[in-house]
Amino acid sequence: MAKHADPFNPTPASASGPVVPAPSIAILPAPTAELAAAVTGGGGVVEPLSDTTVGVVLADAVGAAELEKVLDEHPGIRWIQLYLAGVDQYEHLMRANRAREWTSGKGAFGQPVGEFALTLTLAIMRGIPVFPSSRGRSAGGRRGERPCTAEMWSWSAPGVSAPKSCGCCRHSPTTSLWSGRTTGRCPERTVTDDGLDEALAGADVVILAAAMTGGTEHLIDARRLALLRPEAFLVNISRGPMVDTEALVTALAGGKLAGAALDVTDPQPLPEGHPLWAEPRALITPHTAETPDMVAPLLAARVQENVRRFSAGQPLDGKVDVDEGY
Amino acid sequence: MAKHADPFNPTPASASGPVVPAPSIAILPAPTAELAAAVTGGGGVVEPLSDTTVGVVLADAVGAAELEKVLDEHPGIRWIQLYLAGVDQYEHLMRANRAREWTSGKGAFGQPVGEFALTLTLAIMRGIPVFPSSRGRSAGGRRGERPCTAEMWSWSAPGVSAPKSCGCCRHSPTTSLWSGRTTGRCPERTVTDDGLDEALAGADVVILAAAMTGGTEHLIDARRLALLRPEAFLVNISRGPMVDTEALVTALAGGKLAGAALDVTDPQPLPEGHPLWAEPRALITPHTAETPDMVAPLLAARVQENVRRFSAGQPLDGKVDVDEGY
Repeated sequence: MAKHADPFNPTPASASGPVVPAPSIAILPAPTAELAAAVTGGGGVVEPLSDTTVGVVLADAVGAAELEKVLDEHPGIRWIQLYLAGVDQYEHLMRANRAREWTSGKGAFGQPVGEFALTLTLAIMRGIPVFPSSRGRSAGGRRGERPCTAEMWSWSAPGVSAPKSCGCCRHSPTTSLWSGRTTGRCPERTVTDDGLDEALAGADVVILAAAMTGGTEHLIDARRLALLRPEAFLVNISRGPMVDTEALVTALAGGKLAGAALDVTDPQPLPEGHPLWAEPRALITPHTAETPDMVAPLLAARVQENVRRFSAGQPLDGKVDVDEGY
Repeated sequence: MAKHADPFNPTPASASGPVVPAPSIAILPAPTAELAAAVTGGGGVVEPLSDTTVGVVLADAVGAAELEKVLDEHPGIRWIQLYLAGVDQYEHLMRANRAREWTSGKGAFGQPVGEFALTLTLAIMRGIPVFPSSRGRSAGGRRGERPCTAEMWSWSAPGVSAPKSCGCCRHSPTTSLWSGRTTGRCPERTVTDDGLDEALAGADVVILAAAMTGGTEHLIDARRLALLRPEAFLVNISRGPMVDTEALVTALAGGKLAGAALDVTDPQPLPEGHPLWAEPRALITPHTAETPDMVAPLLAARVQENVRRFSAGQPLDGKVDVDEGY
């Protein structure tokens, strides 16, 4: 199939060297106009799965089992672009397919997620959740005059925009990032596992933005909740299981921390009658830090850039570290 | 009374010139430790009302009629420091006492008020009010991808910190300030009455931070609400009567704007059963943009600086323009 002869998928003529055929990319479960334009804009051609498919772009949820079948039946697929920043559901599949390149949306959605982290932080600190249409609830929120220390726990980039934006706080916040590696991004200091407990004990706001891996499950457990100051707030924009929910319920009820804003919960969705719904110190949102229409153009930009890089044989953006699991 | 001999109210010895007695300042309705320290720190002495009283500092609500009586009975009072930024309740009293200097908290509380304006803006834009403990309400909030134009309507300074902080928004916001005068502060452009309607028509967020005067009552009426885009949000952190509540209820119900976050209302408090309580596009908070314990240290700093200036015969900070009414 001479792709460069297809008027809908033109391949620019090369002035020198052999003409490289544009890579055949399948978009699953079905192409969207935005992602098709991104693939074409990056120099690829959008085609259904076939023997010539070299790359797969996920436009929406595709189960790990379904994706496994696709990969097994199409050995020519060398690259899979996942559509979210979190990739925990594909962990086993990625380990079984190490020879293929896996990329995700990691780092691409930092702006909306960071903005939402700031929204939740301000809302819980300034007592927003206790007011609207629930006037019977007791007033919460911090009223004091203290410097703001925002502790941002993340191995990847999704929430890194938030502390930078915290210039709105009364005092300049000190921002710490807990990380397995040096990121070179905005935090004023980076602590590793050794420094985590000490940083928690000094934090005014703890924002969980880490990737969900085996190492971060119940990262915030009863012991670490006990390290928090009673004036501290916990914000989770990552994954529910990063917090031991039962321990959090107990800590909130006992006034061990000032409040928690949770965009993700465990279980999720939180069932009717769960004690967190009745907890006046808790603000629950239904995983809306990044909504589909916020993500769509950012994912399209990531796809277009990665198709361009794939075509040019350059390293891809947002490459998943299969061993680290994000 | 030789004030400089009082060990609790020492007056520094002057190396040259006559020793000026420290001004006798009365704190009404009663001194607080924080304001007494501020007066002393500024070089004044805190004393009950007497024939030697030259300045009055309000520590809390004192009715206009009560203050009028104090002024009538103590003709030596040359300066009144009011304790809020808004001074509309003293308008007639100030006009009847033009020979005295009137100062307020204007400009001193910009940080907490601006922070709250940003909190409300993010909360209403990102759909926070529709979630907590009111899950039956329909989801609101903006989900699109557009540049953010924050229009900040203010004659004085209280809310000016907010747009600066809007760096958290997806795109850099364009900030406009509607003003009778050039402020030289952060807005990217300043419009006067002539440009107000046009600016409203282009705004994504309209934040009301103006002082309440005769000229700003029902500033946002049915006609101006009709100028707003259906995607625009209205935030009021100023005074309730600046918005025609009835017109706002109609506009919200008709989807003429995307939502309103109101820290102040008219009437205030909003009575039970008021249609705004049931309006899913409205977020109501009970005038908590600046809480007493946020204001206290900022007012103390204003008082200390003004006592120092008063003692030194220098122009006072936050001087009320009696004709403009703020």
